[in-house]
Amino acid sequence: MRKPKIVILGAGYGGLMTATRLQKAVGANEAEITLVNKNEYHYETTWLHEASAGTLHHDRVRYDISKVIDRNKVEFIQGTAVEIKTEEKKVLLEKGELEYDYLVVALGGESETFGIKGLKEYAYSISNINSARQIREHIEYQFATYNTEKEKDDTRLTIVVGGAGFTGIEFLGELGNRIPELCKEYDVDFEKVKIICVEAAPMVLPGFDPELVEYAVAHLEKKGVQFRIGTAIKEGTPEGIIVAKGENDVEEIKAGTVIWAAGIRGNAIIEKSGFEAMRGRVKVEADLRAPGHDNVFIVGDSSLMINEEINRPYPPTAQIAMQQGEVVARNLAALIHNKSELESFTYDNKGTVCSLGEHDAIGVAFGKKMVGTKASFMKKMIDNRALYMIGGASLVAKKGKFNVL
Amino acid sequence: MRKPKIVILGAGYGGLMTATRLQKAVGANEAEITLVNKNEYHYETTWLHEASAGTLHHDRVRYDISKVIDRNKVEFIQGTAVEIKTEEKKVLLEKGELEYDYLVVALGGESETFGIKGLKEYAYSISNINSARQIREHIEYQFATYNTEKEKDDTRLTIVVGGAGFTGIEFLGELGNRIPELCKEYDVDFEKVKIICVEAAPMVLPGFDPELVEYAVAHLEKKGVQFRIGTAIKEGTPEGIIVAKGENDVEEIKAGTVIWAAGIRGNAIIEKSGFEAMRGRVKVEADLRAPGHDNVFIVGDSSLMINEEINRPYPPTAQIAMQQGEVVARNLAALIHNKSELESFTYDNKGTVCSLGEHDAIGVAFGKKMVGTKASFMKKMIDNRALYMIGGASLVAKKGKFNVL
Repeated sequence: MRKPKIVILGAGYGGLMTATRLQKAVGANEAEITLVNKNEYHYETTWLHEASAGTLHHDRVRYDISKVIDRNKVEFIQGTAVEIKTEEKKVLLEKGELEYDYLVVALGGESETFGIKGLKEYAYSISNINSARQIREHIEYQFATYNTEKEKDDTRLTIVVGGAGFTGIEFLGELGNRIPELCKEYDVDFEKVKIICVEAAPMVLPGFDPELVEYAVAHLEKKGVQFRIGTAIKEGTPEGIIVAKGENDVEEIKAGTVIWAAGIRGNAIIEKSGFEAMRGRVKVEADLRAPGHDNVFIVGDSSLMINEEINRPYPPTAQIAMQQGEVVARNLAALIHNKSELESFTYDNKGTVCSLGEHDAIGVAFGKKMVGTKASFMKKMIDNRALYMIGGASLVAKKGKFNVL
Repeated sequence: MRKPKIVILGAGYGGLMTATRLQKAVGANEAEITLVNKNEYHYETTWLHEASAGTLHHDRVRYDISKVIDRNKVEFIQGTAVEIKTEEKKVLLEKGELEYDYLVVALGGESETFGIKGLKEYAYSISNINSARQIREHIEYQFATYNTEKEKDDTRLTIVVGGAGFTGIEFLGELGNRIPELCKEYDVDFEKVKIICVEAAPMVLPGFDPELVEYAVAHLEKKGVQFRIGTAIKEGTPEGIIVAKGENDVEEIKAGTVIWAAGIRGNAIIEKSGFEAMRGRVKVEADLRAPGHDNVFIVGDSSLMINEEINRPYPPTAQIAMQQGEVVARNLAALIHNKSELESFTYDNKGTVCSLGEHDAIGVAFGKKMVGTKASFMKKMIDNRALYMIGGASLVAKKGKFNVL
């Protein structure tokens, strides 16, 4: 009897959770499971702001996929998916192709620049291991270059962060700790460095409790961050950015480093493959299948689910991706076992903590607001939990965060 | 009674040796000694190739001048000399000016690009702490960027070293050790990296024993270095260099990093101040005074002395600069003490060792040729000796090299 072929695209939070749960839920003879990922490692997307700032080495932010999958049940292929041919039940890779009976699309998101001119060319985005270490090295190079020039160009030391959402704020928190170190390393006067956060929305961290936001802003300002709220980036240039507050209030901010952390969209492959999507995200069914596709599940940043309470989409987070992965694993097992009833996904919000640097954070967990070291401790527990859910205690021991005050 | 004013410009090997010896040779009431240096630290010029490659942190390559001077006898001014007005016995600094009765010019050398187009703009030179860490960061940035690009540009990973003299070869030795580390750090295939040494002269390390040179070339080639001997750099470009072997044999070498390590000249201030000089180097008298200037001594890279045995100038080295510093200190003390007879300088060649990376070297010491770990050990002893001569045992303990096999 021919075993059904399950192909999982992507080994981020959603894909790897699907694979590791599925390998426990089905026998080796029941299905042929293939996991495809661009790199041979998984990385913690939610820790990339640390690797980008240089406060945590990028090797601490990734681990080999082979460490967490059961090779008897899951075949791993290092490759890049290019297009999904749903009618032919095939995935085209950069090299070769794969047939499937069931497909899980867990390819993550991409930076969304909303068509703002020059951002793709001149701004960095905190997207993956490669871009994180490039950002780290770029900033270090700017600092290293400063003193070599006869005419000192202080704008080399200006870092603009576009976006005061989760990623932007967490990155600013790390920069707050990192800049004094960089000043020491490269003999640069701290007073010369500028960190500017530009946010088009009228507020920082929309959706967060205002009291917590106030705490975050005050603490980041104390570390030297300047906020430009209600200010839109109009253009990225080789010298920095052009912003506008009102219609006529246009200004150039020269900066040696521009990080764009304000937008995310689904993977480009989604639209290329003909799925109906909004900014590359597919509004999935309750059982996480793509509408009209009985054998295609979509999880993580490329999926879209509406939070009925506020009638707005859930933000794409690691937490929701992992919970989706668990449900997809169970639903795939049900399909393999010929059960017709599939489970509906319901999001269990375990809380959200936004880090503000190594020993500071704000957040809500167990229904309680918290700030400072308490919130920071909670953040580390959340980070460790993600490791535990996918790789168990041994992965936590290897990659966990224990640098608690 | 007015104390004579002695001004020492530069706290490199020559200047700092002069200052530290002079502070022992004269009493606090006998002279007013002022040491002027651009930075508040001294750096080991002969170790900069390590900081540039990233094999030794730049903080290991420098120490505070205040640690080795006696503040009761020597006043330290952090400043940059711009011009010497010999007739007025004045030094103009970027900020302010200084009068002197006796002057020691120990301002070191500058990179000499021989008018080759584009080298100043596009090539780095191993000149000081600032440029060394910029080179380190530039190379790291090239490696970090490689994997972020869709179209991989292998020439990013090409490093061209212009010059197979002492600095070029020692830097190549460090790169040989560093490149495998960089490949690991940035997930780069070692096979993609190219290290090319371009040398216009028909040989590597001119003046060195041919047997030792052969050893060096073979060992560097084993580490991946390609030599292009008898090949001149014609131009530096934003993409790399243009070289020529013969008249018509012109070729472009694309490279993400170009290090120019082939030329040195005296400090620009020498010519600006009206001293007669060859490439910024003044052919000094036997007592190390500038011809026609009874009260100006010149030591180190801005001085020129002829090796009578071969009728060619001694190469500018730390060893010769320090020996000159010792003599100048004694001659200044003699002048202060109203002795008319000044000491003539004779170079005492204690040997030369050229490092080929952490545990390898070639050289001649105590009249014996040596290679490998033995030569490498000798090199470290030479490095430690320079520290000892200026700052004594405590400086050796703090900054010395003890990573002997």
